[in-house]
Amino acid sequence: MADQSVKDALAAFVAERDWGQFHTPENLAKSISIEASELLECFQWSADGDVNRVREELADVLTYCFLLAGKLGIDTDEIVLAKLEQTREKYPVEKARGRSTKYDAL
Amino acid sequence: MADQSVKDALAAFVAERDWGQFHTPENLAKSISIEASELLECFQWSADGDVNRVREELADVLTYCFLLAGKLGIDTDEIVLAKLEQTREKYPVEKARGRSTKYDAL
Amino acid sequence: MADQSVKDALAAFVAERDWGQFHTPENLAKSISIEASELLECFQWSADGDVNRVREELADVLTYCFLLAGKLGIDTDEIVLAKLEQTREKYPVEKARGRSTKYDAL
Amino acid sequence: MADQSVKDALAAFVAERDWGQFHTPENLAKSISIEASELLECFQWSADGDVNRVREELADVLTYCFLLAGKLGIDTDEIVLAKLEQTREKYPVEKARGRSTKYDAL
Repeated sequence: MADQSVKDALAAFVAERDWGQFHTPENLAKSISIEASELLECFQWSADGDVNRVREELADVLTYCFLLAGKLGIDTDEIVLAKLEQTREKYPVEKARGRSTKYDAL
Repeated sequence: MADQSVKDALAAFVAERDWGQFHTPENLAKSISIEASELLECFQWSADGDVNRVREELADVLTYCFLLAGKLGIDTDEIVLAKLEQTREKYPVEKARGRSTKYDAL
Repeated sequence: MADQSVKDALAAFVAERDWGQFHTPENLAKSISIEASELLECFQWSADGDVNRVREELADVLTYCFLLAGKLGIDTDEIVLAKLEQTREKYPVEKARGRSTKYDAL
Repeated sequence: MADQSVKDALAAFVAERDWGQFHTPENLAKSISIEASELLECFQWSADGDVNRVREELADVLTYCFLLAGKLGIDTDEIVLAKLEQTREKYPVEKARGRSTKYDAL
């Protein structure tokens, strides 16, 4: 998870503006997708995206991810590690090493 | 940022499989967008997404976000807080309170 | 717009299954975005996407686009041509020729 | 497919600006996804999207879809009808009627 201080800052920001009412899980999922596309836009016509723009757009994606996690009581570190465990089993080192074939999921 | 232990686990996972070669910033940005859509798919026909599926898809989005951050040497906590500061200035409490109008960016 | 016969086939398909109830503009917009990501997935790790997969995913994107247009009474040929006219003015030939700089919208 | 006149207008537009060089299938797939998210943004916080904005964003999605189809020699009407045939078999009327359960693909 992000540091507790980051989670607290996000929660305070939302509470001060009374914006929690707009933050349904569905709206937050739409928002994550929208921001992820703005991040992708940094690479629309070239493999070299401007790093400062990438930083801003990645921040937006993460912000909505943390808000969704907060809404649903999800511990982000926990789910990332749990998924990593599953992926380890799906792609054992000896089979997956250096291959992009069938590398269609992390 | 995620806990150092999460970052370390992700880095080890990628290194063991020699997958860093596929993780260009552009490919990771595509991957974040693709996974964000799988998260959105939990809410495609209904506002009630299955929480277990949401947990898995959110984990995938975050995983690629952390991999991109790692690739570019970005501290995710730092960028989230920096962006929050900008958003605070753009949407001061007295103007933004409880309004969804013009609420088109966090 | 697609040929009238294509529009008619799509409308009949939806009516037979009584699926119009799920096809709110919002749900169709989510669906277009989800299918667009599946199309992007053909190019997730490589610039060479499998053409047969591309054909299927592009078909899905277009299907939802036509359904949304049908729902809102939009003539797709008309909007594409109208937008092209705007883009012509925004990117006059003499300025835009062969430049990707600032080429961030079609 | 869109009317021949629409396809011709798009092709002329691109040729005049010498933009075909940027229109790799991969870049066009990214562009479709990016524009689909701008369409989704019309519904980010509400089920009621502004129709004029929807028209513009849908036009952008379709434009890139037609450009990708043109690039790969794909007949858009043909693929939409072929996919519809597959979906008919996957969701026969008697099973699919009025159900959103398992309605996770069109």
